[in-house]
Amino acid sequence: MSSMDQKLFNTRLTVAYDGTNYHGWQVQDNSLTVQQILEEQIKIILREEVRVIGSGRTDAGVHARGQIANFKHRHQMDLYRFLGSLNGLIPHDIRILKAEQVPLDFHAQHHALSKIYHYHLHLDPILDPFKRLYAYQVKCKINVEALREAAQLFLGTHDFTSFANEAHAGCAAYDPVRTMKRLDIVREEGGIRLEFEADGFLYKMVRNIVGILLEIASGKKKAEDIPLILKAKDRRRAGTSVPPHGLFLMNVMYPY
Amino acid sequence: MSSMDQKLFNTRLTVAYDGTNYHGWQVQDNSLTVQQILEEQIKIILREEVRVIGSGRTDAGVHARGQIANFKHRHQMDLYRFLGSLNGLIPHDIRILKAEQVPLDFHAQHHALSKIYHYHLHLDPILDPFKRLYAYQVKCKINVEALREAAQLFLGTHDFTSFANEAHAGCAAYDPVRTMKRLDIVREEGGIRLEFEADGFLYKMVRNIVGILLEIASGKKKAEDIPLILKAKDRRRAGTSVPPHGLFLMNVMYPY
Repeated sequence: MSSMDQKLFNTRLTVAYDGTNYHGWQVQDNSLTVQQILEEQIKIILREEVRVIGSGRTDAGVHARGQIANFKHRHQMDLYRFLGSLNGLIPHDIRILKAEQVPLDFHAQHHALSKIYHYHLHLDPILDPFKRLYAYQVKCKINVEALREAAQLFLGTHDFTSFANEAHAGCAAYDPVRTMKRLDIVREEGGIRLEFEADGFLYKMVRNIVGILLEIASGKKKAEDIPLILKAKDRRRAGTSVPPHGLFLMNVMYPY
Repeated sequence: MSSMDQKLFNTRLTVAYDGTNYHGWQVQDNSLTVQQILEEQIKIILREEVRVIGSGRTDAGVHARGQIANFKHRHQMDLYRFLGSLNGLIPHDIRILKAEQVPLDFHAQHHALSKIYHYHLHLDPILDPFKRLYAYQVKCKINVEALREAAQLFLGTHDFTSFANEAHAGCAAYDPVRTMKRLDIVREEGGIRLEFEADGFLYKMVRNIVGILLEIASGKKKAEDIPLILKAKDRRRAGTSVPPHGLFLMNVMYPY
């Protein structure tokens, strides 16, 4: 039987991880990543090399509650047992929440319709020690209503070049236009969270947007600057970013 | 001026800590404890040796949201500045939430009227990676209603010898009678928490009580066994304990 004839399977994983101890999702030389751990342990279970494709990379220190990934494999398997085996092999700060068989053409990155990210801001003057790894402590006084109003200026379809770091900017196919469907400010114990939903996010886009919103909320910039900065298409205009540990990839939506 | 004439001050601290990286509250040889860190850093700020007295010790891995401590000192100080300085020196997984001047005779351990502990049980078959250090995952099926009913049998005044490990059992003044004022079972995301309030807790008492409640809730023991075990005053009768990382010291109450 040639490899052309060989039946392939495609499995989709829903993955949660505490990003504190990882250099992000994507395989890199000489650093521990979630993708690398999954590929190594799936190889042990299935006895074949697989390539785990994530919906997108998350940076070092960023967390996920609903990262989606898929991988193709030759060996048929009982998904329930596979889920148990994989969770038994990987560290406790990564958990596979679900494993499903999907059509062969499903691709976790290319088929993503939209993603939801949450960014947590801790606003108490004294940091809650249980949030130190999961929220960014803002030490200056901020105006939450000004932040909420400014956030609305990001809604809709924009060229987000000014809010993207340059990871992909050299690529020919690089398209910096994204549609922000939702940017809600929700109060939570000790602070607020910003809920982002877009059809896609450029590199460091969420953290750069939170950065400028904090500058506006603390009076250093004005909300009216946002349309001008978007228009400038120049990363240097947007200002500072915020640290990764407040950021959670919550959910990725697909057409099926 | 003799030391008898020297004016002394007494300061009370409210302390929160993530116990993951500590060998508990109380100073021990060769291991990192919260009390030791506070004494060392207060010495740097006040330039005098102090003894920090906690409301009680917490074991290695146990967390606190409202541990109370006090220490006596000769140097007068601005409490607001002291709070900022101390939080600037200690690690981020320990935070001083409050510093107050109290009468010289206040003693954090001897004057405690009651304490509240919470124990978190994670009941989902797949562990939430963000709860792995803060809740105990119960892998067997448990009956929460049976657990709730059995918990009521601990209410009131009992000799808790059967639920105490032997840390103090040799002391002449050892009194194993305690009054459990409240033992509530509260549902929370992914599981339940047990809320204990008593006028005092013997060594490992909460973890031993949670241990037997889980045996009852999973059908291994019967609720009717609890009065018999209490009556036996024998630690060997009560069975297994649960791990420290689900346990939080929430609050200590004083007459003033």
